[in-house]
Amino acid sequence: MKVGFLGPFGTYTHQAAYECFQDSITYCEKTTIADTIESLETLDYAVVPRENSIFGSVVETFDGLRSLKEGFILGEIVLKIQHCLVIKKGAKLADIDCVMSHEQALGQCRKFIAEHLSSAATFKTTSTAAAAEAVSRSKTLNVAAICSKICTTMFGNLELVEEGIQDEDFNYTRFFVLGRNSLIKPPSYPTYPTRALIRVTMRTTAADSETSFDLTEFLKILNLSVIRIDRRPAPLSITFRDMYFLELQSTSKEDLWPKKVEQSVSRIRDNGFLAESIGLW
Amino acid sequence: MKVGFLGPFGTYTHQAAYECFQDSITYCEKTTIADTIESLETLDYAVVPRENSIFGSVVETFDGLRSLKEGFILGEIVLKIQHCLVIKKGAKLADIDCVMSHEQALGQCRKFIAEHLSSAATFKTTSTAAAAEAVSRSKTLNVAAICSKICTTMFGNLELVEEGIQDEDFNYTRFFVLGRNSLIKPPSYPTYPTRALIRVTMRTTAADSETSFDLTEFLKILNLSVIRIDRRPAPLSITFRDMYFLELQSTSKEDLWPKKVEQSVSRIRDNGFLAESIGLW
Repeated sequence: MKVGFLGPFGTYTHQAAYECFQDSITYCEKTTIADTIESLETLDYAVVPRENSIFGSVVETFDGLRSLKEGFILGEIVLKIQHCLVIKKGAKLADIDCVMSHEQALGQCRKFIAEHLSSAATFKTTSTAAAAEAVSRSKTLNVAAICSKICTTMFGNLELVEEGIQDEDFNYTRFFVLGRNSLIKPPSYPTYPTRALIRVTMRTTAADSETSFDLTEFLKILNLSVIRIDRRPAPLSITFRDMYFLELQSTSKEDLWPKKVEQSVSRIRDNGFLAESIGLW
Repeated sequence: MKVGFLGPFGTYTHQAAYECFQDSITYCEKTTIADTIESLETLDYAVVPRENSIFGSVVETFDGLRSLKEGFILGEIVLKIQHCLVIKKGAKLADIDCVMSHEQALGQCRKFIAEHLSSAATFKTTSTAAAAEAVSRSKTLNVAAICSKICTTMFGNLELVEEGIQDEDFNYTRFFVLGRNSLIKPPSYPTYPTRALIRVTMRTTAADSETSFDLTEFLKILNLSVIRIDRRPAPLSITFRDMYFLELQSTSKEDLWPKKVEQSVSRIRDNGFLAESIGLW
């Protein structure tokens, strides 16, 4: 079994994928979110970021979902972005005089650096994973990296000094786990799924793009609990025609949920909308 | 009177502002969307892009609206992105051997260039306005620029050869016109406004960020026609608490609309949400 993820190795998406699949699978790094989603044509699973608690929805992911050919969302992973201080095995914190990481991670750990590594110089790398690699390859013991925890499993000679050294404590990212189809279930897929994602293209009621359809009426037809709504322009279509992604939640754990979602999507179609269920978890 | 806009002069935002205010106002260019919105502390109006029909919502604009201190949305302008071919007065199309513009505009007019300027070289500039300026300053008559129409009013020695030379015809941008407050009305403010924008922070029903509020129930309480929904993370708040921007539409032209919106917002507040009306047009 193989999972594609937004790479390179050592990213938080890699970490999220690892939390889901552990050592049961082969990890394949992809360069872009579009490539990761498209990798489902040949791989079994794909993991992509869906939203960050500070920066919001990941537009590239929703754009990939607009024209999803292969693939079905089968889970989500919520990861606390925990920056880690990592050194070479045998090194001592007191001897560190250079801390390396991506510019953003260095900025997010400013307080920790000022308090514990006040005499160390900071050095910017292209990614947090690149910093971990540089420390791993270093011939001296005076360098440290700020990176994700999974980097310590990638390089055998690294040691975790402290986890969660970022200044702010509310930085979370939510990831989607997609499968090649709806039948291939990831580990810990729930017995009774309680979530669903449906994709709907709005009706255009006038050619001049000025009149749009009433979403209040639309949700009445849907008649299920909607907990998140994201909007994107429908691909290759009439100007300002919207595509909505609606995340649904079951109000109880019950085996009728998949059927309820299916019936709801049918009801929407009967009312003249293009609609599809693209996830159930 | 003064209007701030996302600059520099000659951008499509400048063009949009001009379509609204014509020669009745002083135009003040701003470097970022945040600066443009904040300029309402000292200026009368501000114009910012809200969404493009291909690229979707402008995140920076909604982020600015999350914590709007001064300002109220009083209109929208829908602009067809029409690239124009511009030459020096007295020049002839047949003599043009160099076309200048921003990389994106050059790419968007590939067919026109191949057909009408096949022997001309293309030259990339930092913006479409910079291309217009370069043509204006040129000592020779063999150069052309691809830019917005408003550039021809900025430089007196330029002549419009053709408007709408882009390959694709469905590229529109919608802009918001904000006033310093709700009382300062822009030209052509309707007698009976039919739109409104409200900003709502969702209730968090559980500390673990896993349970969200049902939007279907929420829209029932709102009880007005909702035609667009945008979602952003609420600023400086609990992880994954959402802020929604709901665009409302009156189903008829009537002078009760402002009151209806106000009552609806009150009803939402009575149900425990943070809600405000931030626009009426």
